[in-house]
Amino acid sequence: MKLLRFTEAGRTRIGRLSGDTVIDLSEVAGVGASMRQLIADLAVLRPALEAATGPAFALSSVRIEAPLPDARKFLGIGMNYAKHAEEARQAGIPIPTSQLWFNKQVTCITGPNDPVVKWAVAEAVDYEIELGVVIGQRCRNVPAAKAREVVAGYMVVNDVSARDWLKRSPTFTLGKSFDSFGPSGPWITTDDEVADPLDLPMKLWVNGELRQDHPTNDMIYDIWAQIEYLSQVMTLEPGDILATGTPSGIGAPTGRFLKPGDVVRAEIAGLGALENPVIAEA
Amino acid sequence: MKLLRFTEAGRTRIGRLSGDTVIDLSEVAGVGASMRQLIADLAVLRPALEAATGPAFALSSVRIEAPLPDARKFLGIGMNYAKHAEEARQAGIPIPTSQLWFNKQVTCITGPNDPVVKWAVAEAVDYEIELGVVIGQRCRNVPAAKAREVVAGYMVVNDVSARDWLKRSPTFTLGKSFDSFGPSGPWITTDDEVADPLDLPMKLWVNGELRQDHPTNDMIYDIWAQIEYLSQVMTLEPGDILATGTPSGIGAPTGRFLKPGDVVRAEIAGLGALENPVIAEA
Repeated sequence: MKLLRFTEAGRTRIGRLSGDTVIDLSEVAGVGASMRQLIADLAVLRPALEAATGPAFALSSVRIEAPLPDARKFLGIGMNYAKHAEEARQAGIPIPTSQLWFNKQVTCITGPNDPVVKWAVAEAVDYEIELGVVIGQRCRNVPAAKAREVVAGYMVVNDVSARDWLKRSPTFTLGKSFDSFGPSGPWITTDDEVADPLDLPMKLWVNGELRQDHPTNDMIYDIWAQIEYLSQVMTLEPGDILATGTPSGIGAPTGRFLKPGDVVRAEIAGLGALENPVIAEA
Repeated sequence: MKLLRFTEAGRTRIGRLSGDTVIDLSEVAGVGASMRQLIADLAVLRPALEAATGPAFALSSVRIEAPLPDARKFLGIGMNYAKHAEEARQAGIPIPTSQLWFNKQVTCITGPNDPVVKWAVAEAVDYEIELGVVIGQRCRNVPAAKAREVVAGYMVVNDVSARDWLKRSPTFTLGKSFDSFGPSGPWITTDDEVADPLDLPMKLWVNGELRQDHPTNDMIYDIWAQIEYLSQVMTLEPGDILATGTPSGIGAPTGRFLKPGDVVRAEIAGLGALENPVIAEA
């Protein structure tokens, strides 16, 4: 299934994408249901969600919202593709010797077509396409071999980053967390529809120019190792989002940062695309 | 007001502390209300909350829970007291040149009397008493001079930290976020009851031995500067928790880390005390 949040006639609801049609799932999920709750109940609700037939809307006629605005955790791993790690090292960030996890504050989450803001206080706003993993079960101490069982699905994440703020503080938290720095979606593709999440082509364009073009198949720490490592520290919960690292091609090495008027398109094969305009702070 | 979450006869509710008596606020706040929602509505609800008279329970007869288990953000500032920053520097962590913010994952939040777990994979578990600030309004770009207006209240936080994990990664996220590493409470004391949050004695004992003993009056970046800095990056929301830094006296310099069987008591004048036993991982 492809699960999305959408707004039509002023009401935001959860839907299922079927071809180019959005099937409203309110009758099954409940009016005003949260995607986080639906993900938690997915095993039970799935047959009814799959069987629901409407109301139906053309995808082009609705506004698509961020799938998980109420996520409780939004974690990202840094320098998890070798060539990108080298880019970062050249910018003065040492290559980590273990998994380097940072946080994006959940208030940065924004929709797949919403604007990314070039804030006045952030000089060097940059893009990072990443495979987003959505946790489906409350879990702790999950061995890598069983990690796929706790995954609900996948989506595209643009881990927008203020490079100047990342340099200012080694914790990364603020530079990763400006409002609007978490475009995600366009929907959650459930795990059963993805043959191999570690073999998905990822592409990111700025104004139509291809900047990142790399499959998910050479992460330094793969998704399963990430879940094993994180879950020995903390309980993971349904709706938690893991951004699993970006490949090479970010703007930093060439100084080509995002500026108002740019359009960033981030696409992962089978998962859909984000397309976000960059605007100046009002 | 002192607002708390408590469990009595198997039901968890929100209450108001009046002397040694807990006044059940369910009738005003709604059965099953979240403290985060109540904080958001505090300006409107306050007269009714203050006027509520019962049911009433002896404080000693109820179990006190974490005030904000559903907080969306739990941020901490590192090395914000000069003498503590020097302790950290001696342990190899450079003194920051701007506010150093890190994240505690919200799943680490635990109650004021709940156990802190010495996890097998964490070698060097340490305590840090901190003044916790609870945000009361959705806000952005708040100047320091107006920052107090967005604060709902204060509580005690023990920013429990795995020092070995902090050394492993400069982002701090994992070392600060093991489950049970966020004892907080015992209640939220609203801002109107605190004459000067920047002049509160803080004391922390391990097994009755005084280890930290310092007032909140010499933060490097005070609460208002913290809110100004953070809110230029991100929207702050009701129920967000800021841990405003710990003074000197942590266990790291002497290697006296927490071990199963220890009891940690953290007290801030006027705000109450946390008392958490340390237990081994089951």
